[in-house]
Amino acid sequence: MQTKVIPRIQAGFMELLPAEQILFNKFVEIIKETFEEYGFVPQDTPIVENADVLFAQIGEDTKKEVYRFSKGDDELGLRFDLTVPLARYVAMYSNSLTFPFRRYQIGKTYRGERPQKGRFREFYQADIDIIGNGALAMVNDAEIPAVINKVFEKLDLGDFVIKISNRKILSGLLEDLGVADKRDEVLRIIDKLEKVGLETDKQMLIDLGITASDANKIMDFVRLGGSNVKILESLGKMEIDNETFKQGVTELFEVVKKAGEFGVPEKNMQIDLAIARGLSYYTGTVYETKLLDDRVKGSVCGGGRYDNLAESYSNQSFPGVGVSIGLTRLFSQLLDAGMIKAETATPAKVLVVPMEADMPFALEVSGKLREAGVPTELYTEDDKFKKKLIYANKIGVPYVAIIGEDEVNKKKVALKNMKTGEQKLLTIMEVSEELENNI
Amino acid sequence: MQTKVIPRIQAGFMELLPAEQILFNKFVEIIKETFEEYGFVPQDTPIVENADVLFAQIGEDTKKEVYRFSKGDDELGLRFDLTVPLARYVAMYSNSLTFPFRRYQIGKTYRGERPQKGRFREFYQADIDIIGNGALAMVNDAEIPAVINKVFEKLDLGDFVIKISNRKILSGLLEDLGVADKRDEVLRIIDKLEKVGLETDKQMLIDLGITASDANKIMDFVRLGGSNVKILESLGKMEIDNETFKQGVTELFEVVKKAGEFGVPEKNMQIDLAIARGLSYYTGTVYETKLLDDRVKGSVCGGGRYDNLAESYSNQSFPGVGVSIGLTRLFSQLLDAGMIKAETATPAKVLVVPMEADMPFALEVSGKLREAGVPTELYTEDDKFKKKLIYANKIGVPYVAIIGEDEVNKKKVALKNMKTGEQKLLTIMEVSEELENNI
Repeated sequence: MQTKVIPRIQAGFMELLPAEQILFNKFVEIIKETFEEYGFVPQDTPIVENADVLFAQIGEDTKKEVYRFSKGDDELGLRFDLTVPLARYVAMYSNSLTFPFRRYQIGKTYRGERPQKGRFREFYQADIDIIGNGALAMVNDAEIPAVINKVFEKLDLGDFVIKISNRKILSGLLEDLGVADKRDEVLRIIDKLEKVGLETDKQMLIDLGITASDANKIMDFVRLGGSNVKILESLGKMEIDNETFKQGVTELFEVVKKAGEFGVPEKNMQIDLAIARGLSYYTGTVYETKLLDDRVKGSVCGGGRYDNLAESYSNQSFPGVGVSIGLTRLFSQLLDAGMIKAETATPAKVLVVPMEADMPFALEVSGKLREAGVPTELYTEDDKFKKKLIYANKIGVPYVAIIGEDEVNKKKVALKNMKTGEQKLLTIMEVSEELENNI
Repeated sequence: MQTKVIPRIQAGFMELLPAEQILFNKFVEIIKETFEEYGFVPQDTPIVENADVLFAQIGEDTKKEVYRFSKGDDELGLRFDLTVPLARYVAMYSNSLTFPFRRYQIGKTYRGERPQKGRFREFYQADIDIIGNGALAMVNDAEIPAVINKVFEKLDLGDFVIKISNRKILSGLLEDLGVADKRDEVLRIIDKLEKVGLETDKQMLIDLGITASDANKIMDFVRLGGSNVKILESLGKMEIDNETFKQGVTELFEVVKKAGEFGVPEKNMQIDLAIARGLSYYTGTVYETKLLDDRVKGSVCGGGRYDNLAESYSNQSFPGVGVSIGLTRLFSQLLDAGMIKAETATPAKVLVVPMEADMPFALEVSGKLREAGVPTELYTEDDKFKKKLIYANKIGVPYVAIIGEDEVNKKKVALKNMKTGEQKLLTIMEVSEELENNI
């Protein structure tokens, strides 16, 4: 006997059994439908990119995580997000695209991190972006949260909040305090506020060389609370004579107002000036979405406005705004917490079970049900009847259509509802009506 | 100014512009829907596998083409088909799966071939397989072509034929001729028949050490023609006293008959004893599907029955039957030949175009249309009206809903049919009715 290779996959790669896969695909379907409902066009870029293209727009930490390899003379890598491929695509095909270019991509991305709970090496991202050619109106910054709001309403995972801010506001404040040169470090520290707490976070600012008084000002600022109206009022009253600051406040005001007009309920959108999104390339509006159910940790969706998407590949200016849903991480947390539950391990609504040698009529029944639009599986194996029903139970199919000699003679099937156990003798037409009404 | 990286992708990677991407996604959607209509469950395995798992079941030629790399201590590779991941999956989760396990996977696979016309390095395969635990009834061999028949009917690419054979028949003949030890080479030569022609192919058999008389017998055999009934009759009359041969003929007879009962029209299924499928691991039924339009070259879908799917990973026996559609290659040929044509570069049915400062009403209209189930894009930029209509024309959206001062006052929109140019003043309700009836 040949030596066997142990069947296994790498840690950090999510692979699902059928019932969970069906559930995951429903998530993808809802997200895809919503994106298309808003007129975003599908995009599908290669998973393998040239290494220099990937490395043109990347942070140092991420660089180490890229799966990199060569083939022949080519230096290649697996994409680590969907934004770099978008930037490359826009620069490459700008003459053939129509702007504003509104695209979505739902696809796998790769980061060879050390595997740990909740971290994935292969994970789906679901991204939307709107890219302008030279300019892009501020109303787009309000449409993005409207789409995200619709996605999370449809996913039906309980209450959620889209936190929103504008990086110009904090930047302006730091300019006003004369510490603009420390902006990136300050943003990184503020990002940690929720994790480390107020006092530690303030101390980190002081350790950076910011005076205690300024650190207090920054802390007071990022913790401005109350309703969106109240926060905007507080911002308006702050006596900060800085153009960047003022522009940020104006933009934030406009975006929040328009998002409301786009149908985002006030309870789902909250100004939170502590949303900084680290060192990323955002230049204006920033978003982060959280579920209120604390079994799902961290941000499930983040993004914002950037001045120039493709600056590594093109001399043209492509401002844009977008967000990314971390789908694999979200799904895995929901599953682990029992917040979603797989119900059936088959896309079929009915399993046709021929008793013995009744295959020709069973084939006819299956064919007609499919023609009537009912996803139908045929039990093909020559097993005992009991084994066939065990199979039906295992895959969780809602109905079984049993076909024996009696049914063949009457040209009918015995339709069994697997939940209630109820069984009826029906014509094929009646079966498809029954299934339409009950599923 | 920073030096730019040239935006580009590797040769052999298909990347589409929006209109073509929408068309490609329609193909995927039809295939997926059909697979699910027959109760196949979705599968989504990692694109990255451990190298030893990949290399456990692979031909020498393919081995060289695998994208292979290491990350930390791990030796990895990109999957080169969807069958090896299926085999690994079945061996790994056999205790959690319900058999017969009917799964489909539509996903990207990788082969680092030298790039040439019509050859892809990243390509979609769309696979279905039915896997038994220990045994699998012959009726499954008939259901597979029924599914493929439905897929190609729905794809609507003109006439096609599913060629079918059974490898036991040819194997039995070779045993009878006493040249069973040359079976793999003979299969490879027969696979070339269509390409090299009768005389060359026969000569290749003779060069292999087969007598001219036996080479003639083999050639006569693989070219048996006429209707399926006639070929089966001819096979029945052949006086070959070999069990493998007889079993092959019986199986082929049963599968062709049952496929008819499954609804495959006779014109779409043709016995062709020259279908050998090279050195692959098939052990019984084999299929190859061709479009009759000769602008699409070669087989668009192939597969067959195998005795033991996961023999490299498990001591259990998992017989199965399945096929694979070479989706990227098919789509690319159809596009190049002009056999399919992209029509619209947006999933939206209507573009809402506010004239000037009519944004709030435009937002209301967009929201209500989406609620009514109409995919709706909003034109967000503050451009001249003419530019907005140029945009609508470029993306090929079927309707434009124009909103000016007059429309705001009347709470109506001017709906323009972009094909006919016709324009009507309608309420939001009337717009959604109009779009439902006309798209």
